[in-house]
Amino acid sequence: MAYGYIGTMRTVQDHRDEVVRILLSGTQGLRAAGCLLYVVSVSDSDSELIHVTEVWQSREHHDASLRLPETQAAIAQAMPLLTGEFTREELTVVGGLGLA
Amino acid sequence: MAYGYIGTMRTVQDHRDEVVRILLSGTQGLRAAGCLLYVVSVSDSDSELIHVTEVWQSREHHDASLRLPETQAAIAQAMPLLTGEFTREELTVVGGLGLA
Repeated sequence: MAYGYIGTMRTVQDHRDEVVRILLSGTQGLRAAGCLLYVVSVSDSDSELIHVTEVWQSREHHDASLRLPETQAAIAQAMPLLTGEFTREELTVVGGLGLA
Repeated sequence: MAYGYIGTMRTVQDHRDEVVRILLSGTQGLRAAGCLLYVVSVSDSDSELIHVTEVWQSREHHDASLRLPETQAAIAQAMPLLTGEFTREELTVVGGLGLA
């Protein structure tokens, strides 16, 4: 079964849109790296909170993607705009509707 | 932008697989009801926890789907196997990879 990763990150005030743009700019190479789903959402109740929902063929595919140049570039760009508060949950994706 | 819903539900002991099956059995009508993504996952660290990640065209589409016969049937089947502990987060989905 596929590997799921649900995470949140908190941005510094008034920089959420900018971080969302950065996250979405680095997705071109993800499908080739084994990514089935990479969704960026924003909380409706917390103006500095970003949710990222990911599904990968395996945890190894996910971990390897962190070494992709575009991923490294996006991380470097986003970090100064983040508070350092992250949450993460690793899941086993059983199935559903809409996954590639 | 699309409506995102991230939720968890806790099952009674040893019934998680059964509830997962019930949740996945009721997905046929969801795409026609405006569902873009409906993913059922299980926690790797908590043997009674199920995660559901949903993306809908709008909140209204999501809420209306709760009145679908197959959704009502799935809820009725699952409820006795759940402890009643739910979490939910409503999100605005900005974009990403893999959404229909």
